[in-house]
Amino acid sequence: MTKARITYISGLQFVAEADSGHAVIMDGEEKFGGRNSGARPMELLLMGLGGCSGMDIVSILKKKKERLTGLDIHVSGTMAEEYPHKYTQIDIEYVVRGRGLSDAAVKRAVQLSMDKYCSVKATLEGVAKIGFSYKIVEE
Amino acid sequence: MTKARITYISGLQFVAEADSGHAVIMDGEEKFGGRNSGARPMELLLMGLGGCSGMDIVSILKKKKERLTGLDIHVSGTMAEEYPHKYTQIDIEYVVRGRGLSDAAVKRAVQLSMDKYCSVKATLEGVAKIGFSYKIVEE
Repeated sequence: MTKARITYISGLQFVAEADSGHAVIMDGEEKFGGRNSGARPMELLLMGLGGCSGMDIVSILKKKKERLTGLDIHVSGTMAEEYPHKYTQIDIEYVVRGRGLSDAAVKRAVQLSMDKYCSVKATLEGVAKIGFSYKIVEE
Repeated sequence: MTKARITYISGLQFVAEADSGHAVIMDGEEKFGGRNSGARPMELLLMGLGGCSGMDIVSILKKKKERLTGLDIHVSGTMAEEYPHKYTQIDIEYVVRGRGLSDAAVKRAVQLSMDKYCSVKATLEGVAKIGFSYKIVEE
């Protein structure tokens, strides 16, 4: 079981502390009464999705001895206009940097993350449609 | 549209930066090749859920002129044993602190967040069953 404790500070500011011992500040926009001192809660879902899938891809490519030099993941989410503004679509673009990377290995790593390993993706995809693409940059 | 950029640093460490301008470090456990320098991606989902719902409840109770002095939210998630270890159940316990709080007002605020306003809850509930309870502490 994974646990987090979220404590109200003031305004719309909350501090969340999880089992791992790490804490994250969340806050709202000024126009809603916040002070913008931390990320929005809905942003954390996109951050978690990119981090989860990124860890899969790095692990897989390292096991395959691919010469990975960088990985940037751009995640964008579209929310429904009506309340509760859930994510209806999330798109992930992977920019995989390396030296002589195998296109087949990168494609397989991305697919394994999306289809088999990424816990965050598997939790979000019940509501949000999740699309993805990748490109390889030689450097 | 909400966006986040997740950049690989080293080991299993990633930094995620979102549209709001705030950044969060994610990392894996030592046993998986990480250095435990930041939260796990799956923890971010529970943190976001607590923060999202907490902001709703604070906003609603303040509008009702309730004398809220504190709010602690305990979120726990159970993952499936098989890959991709998605959340199957998430439970939220709200501890609402205040002076002379109306039980009916607190109950209504929690229900409005869960049923109508909380974007994170509405995004997660397609896969995870979400339960909740609250208690009021006079102080």
